[in-house]
Amino acid sequence: MAASTASRLSPPRFHVSPRSPHPPLRRSRFSPVRAAKLEAVLSIGTHLIPHPRKAASGGEDAFFANSDAGGVFAIADGVSGWAEKDVNPALFSRELMRNSSNFLNDEEVNGDPQILLMKAHAATSSIGSATVIIAVLEKSGTLKIASVGDCGLKVIRKGQVMFSISPQEHYFDCPYQISSEAAGQTYQDALVCSVNLMDGDMIVSGSDGLFDNIFDQEIISTISESSGVDEAAKALAELARKHSVDVTFDSPYSMEARSKGFDVPWWKKLLGAKLIGGKMDDITVVVAQVKTVAVPDEGGDIEEQKGNEQGIAVAVASAEHSEE
Amino acid sequence: MAASTASRLSPPRFHVSPRSPHPPLRRSRFSPVRAAKLEAVLSIGTHLIPHPRKAASGGEDAFFANSDAGGVFAIADGVSGWAEKDVNPALFSRELMRNSSNFLNDEEVNGDPQILLMKAHAATSSIGSATVIIAVLEKSGTLKIASVGDCGLKVIRKGQVMFSISPQEHYFDCPYQISSEAAGQTYQDALVCSVNLMDGDMIVSGSDGLFDNIFDQEIISTISESSGVDEAAKALAELARKHSVDVTFDSPYSMEARSKGFDVPWWKKLLGAKLIGGKMDDITVVVAQVKTVAVPDEGGDIEEQKGNEQGIAVAVASAEHSEE
Repeated sequence: MAASTASRLSPPRFHVSPRSPHPPLRRSRFSPVRAAKLEAVLSIGTHLIPHPRKAASGGEDAFFANSDAGGVFAIADGVSGWAEKDVNPALFSRELMRNSSNFLNDEEVNGDPQILLMKAHAATSSIGSATVIIAVLEKSGTLKIASVGDCGLKVIRKGQVMFSISPQEHYFDCPYQISSEAAGQTYQDALVCSVNLMDGDMIVSGSDGLFDNIFDQEIISTISESSGVDEAAKALAELARKHSVDVTFDSPYSMEARSKGFDVPWWKKLLGAKLIGGKMDDITVVVAQVKTVAVPDEGGDIEEQKGNEQGIAVAVASAEHSEE
Repeated sequence: MAASTASRLSPPRFHVSPRSPHPPLRRSRFSPVRAAKLEAVLSIGTHLIPHPRKAASGGEDAFFANSDAGGVFAIADGVSGWAEKDVNPALFSRELMRNSSNFLNDEEVNGDPQILLMKAHAATSSIGSATVIIAVLEKSGTLKIASVGDCGLKVIRKGQVMFSISPQEHYFDCPYQISSEAAGQTYQDALVCSVNLMDGDMIVSGSDGLFDNIFDQEIISTISESSGVDEAAKALAELARKHSVDVTFDSPYSMEARSKGFDVPWWKKLLGAKLIGGKMDDITVVVAQVKTVAVPDEGGDIEEQKGNEQGIAVAVASAEHSEE
């Protein structure tokens, strides 16, 4: 009944298991210890498969992931058009990721992916451009995202895609891009958003090589069949690669192309052909799982300890709301 | 060149025109006045068309919108299954919206849509359940969203859907729902997310009656052809209603149904029939446009005035970043 919700406390920013009722709280029979609070951390798996024709050079995608500091990851996809100007498209994306990693603990960045992108971009000296996504998990469980272009990110909760970001493009196949040139986009053009995550949520992020070649339902089933984030990232990348070289696969990319008015030549159309097939590309996959861990609450006052049935000291996390 | 970005200041949370270079700053020739800062506000239009068979009672959707306090709106869609238990499904959704409006200025709510949902839910006494979305625009330009179920929200920037939220459902046609019963969902199950908006962004939100009957491209073109938020909301609702009663329209709803394995009976299938048609439902539409307005910066120090070419006093909005 609705009345039962009236007695609830302010919501914590995330929950170990939001659908289960809280285990009964009881006083510890042992000597008081500092209360603990829950912090969200990421367990991250990554996998990169270069474009078949770029395997020798490693492709033009780049990424970094760091689960030490709560959790952060970033992906950059070098815009391949630069090769026509005798510029290696991998240089810019790799430098952008190197810089992002370097500025991670910068005081001004302070966990803000948009500022991290600004600083990483400003520090690049390579010529080129790249689509880019940076995601930072706050201890409170809020995932902060800054994205320019068509790298993707989806959150899967209880077998459903419950959040995903939209790609930004000037026109079909011409995404927004961070660039060495003034005509490109900057951090100011980024899609900046955040989503509150819960224990067990899975994040799947990748370059367009992933999302152009794989459907949501395949992502969900692949993840559910994998035993960990590393295995899931590898399985997703391999499935996307398989589709990418399959000329008979009606991929998200070919469906999008048709919806934008692209098609096979008229004489092929007369023969019943339609525009299908995967999209060969570099494929970068990041799979991250959200876990909540209890840490001693060193900064705050010593509160009355509350223990759950397993005896783990867990303080009600309402303070995290007011921190925001 | 990348080097040019190095001299940029910290990013403001939103921009009057992010793609244009800032107009040249110049000292005012007039006496100093207080610096102004930019605040984001919503201009909101709404339109509700009840289910054709529920027109007399007004249907089971409910909403409220308030653009006085920066901007907030909410939509609740009463779950119609309650009619089978002789409960009027409109009572719960209407009470939930009334309560949401009442708690808007509650100190504990403090602009947080998830807490507003918690309080509004706890204060309900009606029997029933509803899907619900609440969205609050902060002065900084951040739109904070809490959603339970399949009400939708999309942000359109420069003719593209640049952000949209995913519906949550237990299974096809059974959405997550805030309920008078313990088996229902609560604010803790809400999708909680936020997105940084810019001047000119359009928000389109609605009950599933809107998004089940209209495609993104139709939303974009309808908005671009409307002369204001009221006209846009009305036009979207009317187009969705037209599709909803069109048994030959291959709607987002029928496409979703087929993708979930639903179909016409086998004997109809043999005759070449497929499951198509709109979905008759209550249709609620909220269209909101983000505008930035200059307000005197009463709280802060009096800074050197900076005027743009139009002579409007506008302070660089970097302070808004540190406020977060």
